Amino acid sequence: MTRTLQVDLGARSYPIYIGSGLLSDVEVYRPHLISQQVMIVSNDTVAPLYLDVVGATLAEYETRSVILPDGEEYKTLDIWNRIFDALLGARFNRRCTLVALGGGVIGDMAGFAAACYQRGVAFLQLPTTLLAQVDSSVGGKTGVNHRSGKNMIGAFHQPRCVIADTDTLRTLDSRQLSAGIAEVIKYGLINDADFFSWLEEHMDRLLQREPAALAYAIERSCRDKAQVVAADELEAGQRALLNLGHTFGHAIETGMGYGEWLHGEAVAAGTCIAARFSHDLGWLADQQVARIHRLFERAKLPTLAPRSLGTKRILELMAVDKKVVAGRLRLVLLKGIGNAVVTDNFDHARLLRVLDRCR
Amino acid sequence: MTRTLQVDLGARSYPIYIGSGLLSDVEVYRPHLISQQVMIVSNDTVAPLYLDVVGATLAEYETRSVILPDGEEYKTLDIWNRIFDALLGARFNRRCTLVALGGGVIGDMAGFAAACYQRGVAFLQLPTTLLAQVDSSVGGKTGVNHRSGKNMIGAFHQPRCVIADTDTLRTLDSRQLSAGIAEVIKYGLINDADFFSWLEEHMDRLLQREPAALAYAIERSCRDKAQVVAADELEAGQRALLNLGHTFGHAIETGMGYGEWLHGEAVAAGTCIAARFSHDLGWLADQQVARIHRLFERAKLPTLAPRSLGTKRILELMAVDKKVVAGRLRLVLLKGIGNAVVTDNFDHARLLRVLDRCR
Repeated sequence: MTRTLQVDLGARSYPIYIGSGLLSDVEVYRPHLISQQVMIVSNDTVAPLYLDVVGATLAEYETRSVILPDGEEYKTLDIWNRIFDALLGARFNRRCTLVALGGGVIGDMAGFAAACYQRGVAFLQLPTTLLAQVDSSVGGKTGVNHRSGKNMIGAFHQPRCVIADTDTLRTLDSRQLSAGIAEVIKYGLINDADFFSWLEEHMDRLLQREPAALAYAIERSCRDKAQVVAADELEAGQRALLNLGHTFGHAIETGMGYGEWLHGEAVAAGTCIAARFSHDLGWLADQQVARIHRLFERAKLPTLAPRSLGTKRILELMAVDKKVVAGRLRLVLLKGIGNAVVTDNFDHARLLRVLDRCR
Repeated sequence: MTRTLQVDLGARSYPIYIGSGLLSDVEVYRPHLISQQVMIVSNDTVAPLYLDVVGATLAEYETRSVILPDGEEYKTLDIWNRIFDALLGARFNRRCTLVALGGGVIGDMAGFAAACYQRGVAFLQLPTTLLAQVDSSVGGKTGVNHRSGKNMIGAFHQPRCVIADTDTLRTLDSRQLSAGIAEVIKYGLINDADFFSWLEEHMDRLLQREPAALAYAIERSCRDKAQVVAADELEAGQRALLNLGHTFGHAIETGMGYGEWLHGEAVAAGTCIAARFSHDLGWLADQQVARIHRLFERAKLPTLAPRSLGTKRILELMAVDKKVVAGRLRLVLLKGIGNAVVTDNFDHARLLRVLDRCR
């Protein structure tokens, strides 16, 4: 059974297909390819597993591929440029389509290349990690990292469609699966308390990779995210809520060196820090913080920042966050499970103390 | 006297101010700066001349600058990245404004950096060459070169305003002035026969840098271009007319190595080739081709491609042009002075023969 979810963005609306065996079904791709020229962008972990399948499925097209090294540390302008080498080497024109086959990093880089090649071409997302399926595939955020900050160079560019084949999760390593679950838990915390409860009940099924449980969690996460994005495509306001755990998380990722911590792991720790700070401000009860920590722990995710990273360094890295406005740091905090808020109304000394305790 | 021209693009509309002394008038900038953070992007030729003036004018803002090497050969992803180094070094947030102070290359690079920094910030254009004032400042095309093709990586991103201070043309070297006039002549050829006649009459005044003649030519060129752009912002159709001379011209620039020929020089030669091919197809009379060649010659511009570049190499380079659709090369040709058309209906052997004669 294929679940289809429409992301509603006016002229830029697109469907997300979720189900088993989708990668090898050419009918799913066909309505979204506008010319013969198809460039598959993948990495050296995913390509050996799925490039042949996708290539064979798209045999009727003029299909080429470019394989990038796998990992967040390769999400740079230099590596990104290889996609243009491939596109220009193949003489692809502005009616070509890029196909992102991989996790969040591949989706971000291929999407950003699509945004910029000849000032904009089409792209499809074929996310092969849980994180990419629930997060990167909704919202149109694309980009690369700068050594001073994550995702600092990028564009908003919506895919023509997302094809989330749940079979790909079978080969995903456990650490990557947990990292994806971190983002799933995040949606429950932001605006879907019932989903949070569902996750408490069904976490073991997700960890055991039960297809039905995974498909349900992916669809619900995408639906929750799509709702927020549709209301605020360019992140003028409420969309910032999706960054729960990310301001702390990005600081951890950047501070540790890209690739050390997985994005989802950093988000898990970041969300737990946000919960502790919310508790410190009197917004969350003891028992709520405990439920949040417990769920991340069950998903085998970190709930503290690494001890090797100093509090001062974390604060420094947070100061370049995209949510800083007029010199004031804004944080996404919790006024309850399923009730996230954006605020710059907090005491810095207090934040420092909480950070100190969360390492 | 300041001439003001509105470029009409709905929510992305913006004014072009043309006149003397504008760079040092803070009132011109103020309505377009949305926060204190201002990053001036310039090059090592223009900065010594005008950076102090602009810096002093914007003294009430938190103003920083980044100086790039001057020249088309530096319009690369690597050099472009220096703008992000500066922005992140200054901890500028997504409400900052980039100010492009320089010619077309600086406008393209700063504009593209503005399009991508934190997925999009504001920018102002302060064009200091005639070419930038009549061309780069209208239309929102931004980007950098790839070694396989000009402007292959970029975005559409409109400035908040363009401040074209005609005083800057006094310091412009003669070769740069002529290169700008090439684009001015182009507007006459595309859709403004009266302007072409005006240019035949007043070319000497432009070459002598008479302020009134320059201001008139700048305003009329911008108006002609703005009309085409407003009707087709993302180049789905008629906007391609603006590329008269550019398919041949880009091939010359890329083939010779960026920086050897100025963009305007390549466009002049490219436009003359387009005119000769149009003549060969029976679309232009002998006398019309002669008028076109004569006007470019009077402006001290080349009318032939360089002999060192082979015909085959030119054709090869033209094959990656952004106007190629479904493998067919489309060219902008002339059915008269003031009447350009886009066509893919021509014989390749014939094109080859004309190219051979135009070297």
